[in-house]
Amino acid sequence: MSSSPAVHLGPDQREDLADAVREGGGRLVDLADAEAVVWAGGASTFPDSLPESVRWVQLPSAGIESWIEAGTVDTERTWTSAVGAYSDVVAEHAIGLLLAGMRGIVGSSRASSWLPDEVGPPQSTLKGATVAIVGAGGIGRAMIPTLTALGAEVIAVTRRGLPVEGAAETLPADRVSEVFDRADHVVLAAPATSETAALVGADELAAIGASGWLVNIARGSLVDTDALVEALNDGTLGGAALDVTDPEPLPDGHPLWSARNALITPHVANPQHLQTGALAERVAENVRRFATGDELVGVVDLDRGY
Amino acid sequence: MSSSPAVHLGPDQREDLADAVREGGGRLVDLADAEAVVWAGGASTFPDSLPESVRWVQLPSAGIESWIEAGTVDTERTWTSAVGAYSDVVAEHAIGLLLAGMRGIVGSSRASSWLPDEVGPPQSTLKGATVAIVGAGGIGRAMIPTLTALGAEVIAVTRRGLPVEGAAETLPADRVSEVFDRADHVVLAAPATSETAALVGADELAAIGASGWLVNIARGSLVDTDALVEALNDGTLGGAALDVTDPEPLPDGHPLWSARNALITPHVANPQHLQTGALAERVAENVRRFATGDELVGVVDLDRGY
Repeated sequence: MSSSPAVHLGPDQREDLADAVREGGGRLVDLADAEAVVWAGGASTFPDSLPESVRWVQLPSAGIESWIEAGTVDTERTWTSAVGAYSDVVAEHAIGLLLAGMRGIVGSSRASSWLPDEVGPPQSTLKGATVAIVGAGGIGRAMIPTLTALGAEVIAVTRRGLPVEGAAETLPADRVSEVFDRADHVVLAAPATSETAALVGADELAAIGASGWLVNIARGSLVDTDALVEALNDGTLGGAALDVTDPEPLPDGHPLWSARNALITPHVANPQHLQTGALAERVAENVRRFATGDELVGVVDLDRGY
Repeated sequence: MSSSPAVHLGPDQREDLADAVREGGGRLVDLADAEAVVWAGGASTFPDSLPESVRWVQLPSAGIESWIEAGTVDTERTWTSAVGAYSDVVAEHAIGLLLAGMRGIVGSSRASSWLPDEVGPPQSTLKGATVAIVGAGGIGRAMIPTLTALGAEVIAVTRRGLPVEGAAETLPADRVSEVFDRADHVVLAAPATSETAALVGADELAAIGASGWLVNIARGSLVDTDALVEALNDGTLGGAALDVTDPEPLPDGHPLWSARNALITPHVANPQHLQTGALAERVAENVRRFATGDELVGVVDLDRGY
C-alpha cells in the first residue's frame, strides 16, 4: 500500500468523486499508473483489461450481478461494491412501502372521494408487531432503528445467524422458513442468489397471513410472482409492497398491476440523484483504508456472488 | 382520594375498560355513588348532570372540541381527555404520509404501468433533512424517535418553547413563522384553537417550498385550503399529505382531490379498532393516579380549549 494511493477515476472525471479520492488521501492518475480504480459507470464501458499494478477496484453499485455476468470481476485483485452505501436511502423506501400498505395509504392514494369505509382504515400498527427482515445486510440493518422506534420487534435472518444489533432475534438462513409464520410482516432484503430464488412461494405467503404485508426491496426473483398474485387476490396475504418484481419491468396488463392490495414502485428505492453523496462518502472511506492497509468496505466475494 | 376509587363506567360496561378500572385499583359503581366517571361514548349521551361526589371524569377522545361545545366540561371537577393515548398510532400514520409523499409512493399507487420517469422517483430522503413539528404535543413528540432514526433533524414548536426531547431545537408558538422557511418538511400536529386557525396560508406554503411536503395530522382548519390548492397546482409547494381537511369530509369534486401531489387519507390516522388497547391503558393509569392522589394524565385546560 502506498501512503498516497494512485487512483484512476473513470469513465468520467466526476468532480464529487475526484474530491472524494483526494479527501481519502489519494491522487488521481491515468489508468496505466494506477494502483486502484474507482469506476462510476456501467459494466459495458469498463476497460477490457487492467494493468497488473491495479490491486483494487471500487464499483459504483450495491448489487453487482451485471458485473459478474460480464466477467469483469476477476480474482487477480480486490473488488469492492457500493454495498451498504445506499442502505439508508433504500431502507427509508422500504419503511415507506410498509407503512403505506399497512396504513391504508395505497387505497387512499387511488381515491377521489372521502370514503373511509371503502378505502379502508389503517389495518394495523407496527407498535407491538413483529417484522422479519430476511437478509439483514446493510439495508435490512438500516431499517432496524426505525422499526424499533415505531415499536416493532425485529427478527433478522442472516447467512450465519450471528446476532444483529437491535434485532430481538437473529436466525441463520437455513431456518428462514420459520419467520413467515412468526412475523406479522416480512421484508425481503436478501441478495439474489440461487439459494434465494423463489424463496417466497404459496406456503410462505399463506404463513405471513391475511393481515400481513410482504415488502420486497431486494430482487423480484425472491418471490414466486404467480403465487403472489393468487395470495393477494384470494386474501391469503394482506398485501404486498414491492420495489422490485419478476419479471421486471412488470409488463402492462400483468395481473400484479390489478391485484388486491398490491403497491408497486418501479425499482426507484435507490434513485441516482440520491446516490451521489453516498458513493462519494464510500470512495473517500475506502481510499483512506487502502492507503493505511485497513480492510476495505464492501469487498466482493465471488463465491457468494455479492 | 379513596384508596379504591368508586368509578362509574358508561355508557356501556365495556369489558376491557372494566378490567382497566379494576387493574388501576378502582371498583365499579352506579353513577350516584361515583367519585369518578370513565366515559367511553360520545358527548350526546353523556349524563345531563353529575352527582357532586364525582371529582374526575375521563373522556375517551384526544380532541375534545365537541365536549366543550356541548357544554359538558365544567369547572366543578377535573376532566381528562385521552390526549396522548393514541399518539403512537397517529404519529405512525404521519410518518407514513410523509414518506409516501416524499418517496413517490403516491404516484406509484395510482400507476398501472412501469413508468419510473412518469410516476417520479423518490424526490428526497429524510436523511439530513430538517422536519418541523408544529405542535409537539403527544403526537408530535411520538414522531421524533422515528424521524431521528431516519436521519432527520427536528425543529419542534410548542406553546412555550421549552426544550422537547430529541428535537434539535424548540421554538415557542410566537416564533412559528420561522420554521416554514427553515424546515424542508412541516408536520402540523397542533390543536385546533383560534390561534392556529389558518396558521398555514400562501406565504407559509411558499416558504416550505417546491421540494417540501406539508403533512397535516391535526385539524383541517390549520390550513387555508384555497391557498393550498393553488400552491400545489403551481408547484410552489412540493406536496401535501393530509389526514384532515377543511371542509371535512372533503366533498366530491373539490379541487384538492385533483391537486398535484395531494395525498388525502379520510381522517383515519386513529381508527377505532386500534384505539381499544390504548384507552384501556390510559384508564388503568389514571385510576391508579386518582387512587394515590397523583396528577392525572391529560387534564383538560378549559382556558386553552384542550
